[in-house]
Amino acid sequence: MAQHTDPTHSVFIVSDGTGITAETLAHSILSQFDVRFKKIRLPFVDTTEKAQEVAQAINKSAGNDPHRPIVFSSLAKTEFLEIVRASNALHFDLIQTFVPPLEEELGMKAARAMGLSHKSADSAEYGNRMDAINFSLAHDDGQSHKNLANADVILVGVSRSGKTPTSLYLAMQYGIRAANYPLIPEDFERDSLPSALTPHKDKLFGLSINPERLAAIRNERLPNSKYAALENCKQEVQRAEAMMQREGIRWLSSTTKSIEEIATAIMQELKLEKRVG
Amino acid sequence: MAQHTDPTHSVFIVSDGTGITAETLAHSILSQFDVRFKKIRLPFVDTTEKAQEVAQAINKSAGNDPHRPIVFSSLAKTEFLEIVRASNALHFDLIQTFVPPLEEELGMKAARAMGLSHKSADSAEYGNRMDAINFSLAHDDGQSHKNLANADVILVGVSRSGKTPTSLYLAMQYGIRAANYPLIPEDFERDSLPSALTPHKDKLFGLSINPERLAAIRNERLPNSKYAALENCKQEVQRAEAMMQREGIRWLSSTTKSIEEIATAIMQELKLEKRVG
Repeated sequence: MAQHTDPTHSVFIVSDGTGITAETLAHSILSQFDVRFKKIRLPFVDTTEKAQEVAQAINKSAGNDPHRPIVFSSLAKTEFLEIVRASNALHFDLIQTFVPPLEEELGMKAARAMGLSHKSADSAEYGNRMDAINFSLAHDDGQSHKNLANADVILVGVSRSGKTPTSLYLAMQYGIRAANYPLIPEDFERDSLPSALTPHKDKLFGLSINPERLAAIRNERLPNSKYAALENCKQEVQRAEAMMQREGIRWLSSTTKSIEEIATAIMQELKLEKRVG
Repeated sequence: MAQHTDPTHSVFIVSDGTGITAETLAHSILSQFDVRFKKIRLPFVDTTEKAQEVAQAINKSAGNDPHRPIVFSSLAKTEFLEIVRASNALHFDLIQTFVPPLEEELGMKAARAMGLSHKSADSAEYGNRMDAINFSLAHDDGQSHKNLANADVILVGVSRSGKTPTSLYLAMQYGIRAANYPLIPEDFERDSLPSALTPHKDKLFGLSINPERLAAIRNERLPNSKYAALENCKQEVQRAEAMMQREGIRWLSSTTKSIEEIATAIMQELKLEKRVG
């Protein structure tokens, strides 16, 4: 990656809402540069006064820092954007960059209204999201067999292969009802899937993991246990993979993947449609 | 909002990674238009072959739809971007839009490498995230008093005011160790905070909710119960708000807010620093 040794650049994330979109974008763009950035998120900038305070903060940073600040903003109202843009920085505004060409393409004016992108608490999508979160919590780690038929996906895998965070992410971000069910030594002895799962084979998706990595994770929880021993991890992983192979369960290795990458791959494999956003 | 009656526009979200950044941006921009969009997310486009397939899919849509497709892409490698951009659509690429002016500002070349923006499973930040998720699950709904001193924030409020999804979101997105603790009728009878919470008053943050909304949510879970009765909800909310007021606990109303908005407001109020991203 490109090298750089200068002191930190200040990056302001400015939004009339949460700033999550602007921050996600900034993070993605800035990760392409091997530079230390100091990010300052300023959400809910929804009055003239707050816009003026933001401009002052940026100018102050411009006066003190060795580098001009960088601003990623998402400000729907032109009046607030103009105030912020008058400050001394390299400015990128999401609305201003993408909305005008879209207005031209669609032959219509954008609303330029604040707060349109998040689902508020009384929308149907919000209800889907809450239902999915409650479902995933109730069906974490094989806690309940009730209503497994209502699951969109049932994740299976050995303990600590990443099932719980992936289930919660699928529920939170996409309103997917994701249950998860551990594969434990008893299942390998019996050499068959837990019986609660057999009626739902089409919804199963497996997570596996590199045994060395698994041993490291388990050792943090239960140091020097049989559970965490490398030899035991190797066996569990091997038998879990053999079982998934034999049963025709699709699976992936979570070893080098982020939760987002695992969740996205599962949605793609199972052709799941999200229920929010 | 601007009105439009034409048939749906196809929107392709194309990425060499998960496509979450491009999708978040697209959602935010498109929500400014009162048009029905049909979104197609195409993640993990990381080979020449996959880029060609994407271009074909876009061209097919361009041939069938009444409107030209719209493409939001995030493709770090110029060779894949060029293949996709040759298709018949209105193209927006995040890298191409923002990276060149940043290269000039920073006086250096971007890495233009794929997969830089997500934390993989062996980074310290990933560990922070997992720890926070496990902490929030273990401290959901007042389940455990153990290690409350390690919490970054302890959410309090009546049952169904939004504590659980907010705690999980804070953990998942920001690596914040968020516990949550219900305020129940017994606390109001005694007219004091649960004793487990008094040593941690500086970490408390309250969620309240409009009683009518609360009654509606509770009625979905336990129809026609005392728990869900409007009169009971009114009393609980009033007494919870009085208690928070008296104890000097900061709080907000979750009634019209998304989980993202609640979480962002809490981070801002308590000046919490995220441990991931």
